[in-house]
Amino acid sequence: MTQTRLDVLAIGNAVVDIIADCDDAFLEAERLTKGMMRLIDADEAVRLYDHMGPAREISGGSAGNTAAGIAALGGKAGFVGQVAPDQLGEFYRHDLTATGVEFTTAATDFGVPTGRVMVLVTPDGHRTMNTFLGAAQHLPVAALDETQIEGAAILYLEGYLWDPETPRFAMVKAIDVARRAGRRVAFTLSDSFCIDRHRDGFNGLIDGGRIDILFANEAEIVMLAGEVDFDSAVAAVADRVETLVVTRSEKGAIAVSDGERAQVAAEPVDRVVDTTGAGDLFAAGFLAGQTQGRSLEDSLRIGAIAAAEIISHYGARPEADLKALVAARLG
Amino acid sequence: MTQTRLDVLAIGNAVVDIIADCDDAFLEAERLTKGMMRLIDADEAVRLYDHMGPAREISGGSAGNTAAGIAALGGKAGFVGQVAPDQLGEFYRHDLTATGVEFTTAATDFGVPTGRVMVLVTPDGHRTMNTFLGAAQHLPVAALDETQIEGAAILYLEGYLWDPETPRFAMVKAIDVARRAGRRVAFTLSDSFCIDRHRDGFNGLIDGGRIDILFANEAEIVMLAGEVDFDSAVAAVADRVETLVVTRSEKGAIAVSDGERAQVAAEPVDRVVDTTGAGDLFAAGFLAGQTQGRSLEDSLRIGAIAAAEIISHYGARPEADLKALVAARLG
Repeated sequence: MTQTRLDVLAIGNAVVDIIADCDDAFLEAERLTKGMMRLIDADEAVRLYDHMGPAREISGGSAGNTAAGIAALGGKAGFVGQVAPDQLGEFYRHDLTATGVEFTTAATDFGVPTGRVMVLVTPDGHRTMNTFLGAAQHLPVAALDETQIEGAAILYLEGYLWDPETPRFAMVKAIDVARRAGRRVAFTLSDSFCIDRHRDGFNGLIDGGRIDILFANEAEIVMLAGEVDFDSAVAAVADRVETLVVTRSEKGAIAVSDGERAQVAAEPVDRVVDTTGAGDLFAAGFLAGQTQGRSLEDSLRIGAIAAAEIISHYGARPEADLKALVAARLG
Repeated sequence: MTQTRLDVLAIGNAVVDIIADCDDAFLEAERLTKGMMRLIDADEAVRLYDHMGPAREISGGSAGNTAAGIAALGGKAGFVGQVAPDQLGEFYRHDLTATGVEFTTAATDFGVPTGRVMVLVTPDGHRTMNTFLGAAQHLPVAALDETQIEGAAILYLEGYLWDPETPRFAMVKAIDVARRAGRRVAFTLSDSFCIDRHRDGFNGLIDGGRIDILFANEAEIVMLAGEVDFDSAVAAVADRVETLVVTRSEKGAIAVSDGERAQVAAEPVDRVVDTTGAGDLFAAGFLAGQTQGRSLEDSLRIGAIAAAEIISHYGARPEADLKALVAARLG
């Protein structure tokens, strides 16, 4: 196996978060289920935007957040995703590269603007996401750089990529390239509604032996396994992947890897402002720990530290010095 | 005098804030003076953006922030400013109208994008602003709606408008329309460097009797008066306008109006995150108080409450319920 140049290469939907506060009554009036992510078209994007409150724009995207987190933790991260040649696309590229992430996918005009997620944050810090994928849904196989994939120790993919067909093909192709080069493949289930849409596809990836590290939260693991309780769901899925990581919000997280089991409590947070990106940053911390050769438990701990930082402010990109936070806790 | 439809109509540069953290060394390397606002061209905007850290975008602009603050305080506010037909322009319009501000100036393609301010925030919460005016510098006299100006109790203008010639003409025209309709005109000196560039113009406006309410901070009033100490500067300028309001950061604020003098302490703040917009929101609070028929001291107090809220988070648009904050303090 050749030397690696990147610790993690993440592929995902390149989208800017447009974050606004709202109350529970607004979600109800819009018939939105709190905590869910739904895909919307251009018309609905305009209609919803007209109804929501003043917003701030912060670059996001699940795998992009994870890449930014890994870079903030001192790792070498790359990102592959599709933006359009517009202002949102420029923000996206700026923010990711300013974090130290390698992002070389060219902006391309497919006749649609850069994707955006209208994130509605309720006073309890929960986010309800309305995603207009825009350019992100056009990420072509041709945008992949095989040498870049081969040079990354871990290829990381978000389940959201499965939604539109074009990036789904790119994802599957990337997995094949990584596998052939002997690299590890990590995958996040992203969202329970996403699993509902693509259960067969996800199970096919897992049982086809294409995924080494699987990330899920409680709802997702239960839904994927089709089991009624958490413990049986974890037991059932842990047998099917090398490493399973399950986050449990304020209950912490567990990991099962080749029979070894570890668990950590959640890190304390003064005030939960916006939970957007908690899972993404947990994955960043865990993967950073793994690529640094840390133990399963310490990798979980770094995930918990990164997740705690991200939920203490708006947006899903780190604001504090994650490396220093980890050094203070773990050395 | 006819009935008014708006409490305050604000005219200013329509710009989106692109806010990034930086350290003092970065300001030094870029040879930037902390706390100043400088105008930059398109090339410098690109160069600086390439060097600065990950950012968040929040609609801003001095007079726009003031209009948003007045609406958040329950007042009827309007805004006049020039955006381009692009994503930043859409954000700007959305955020202002979602706050309840009337904003009817059409987006126009002058071949330049919507303006933006790269705001560099140091750990002490101070902001250093780098403004690319873009479309804002093209605000034409023709964009003014005379009926709208005549229907506003107070016309509010930012000194920054004086920088480019086109909006300067629009501002002077708007003052004439307001004056003819018997309305009050309020003006903020904006920035001490701005006064340095336009001292004669500003003194001409004041001594021509075109300004009723003048807003300044300590540095600005001293620079405008050309006096060496604060008290003599206030005394000298107070004689030249009906109402003078001077903010003094953590030392509070004073107002002198037709011989009456009032002063308030600053409101307590847990942690100063970003001082962007402190002066803008102070002006919003003061003007809201005045249009509600409050005393000089209570108007200052509302200004201090609004300013304290804005410096406790990133961005210069209110996030908390300002009306409730004021009701809790003043009833």
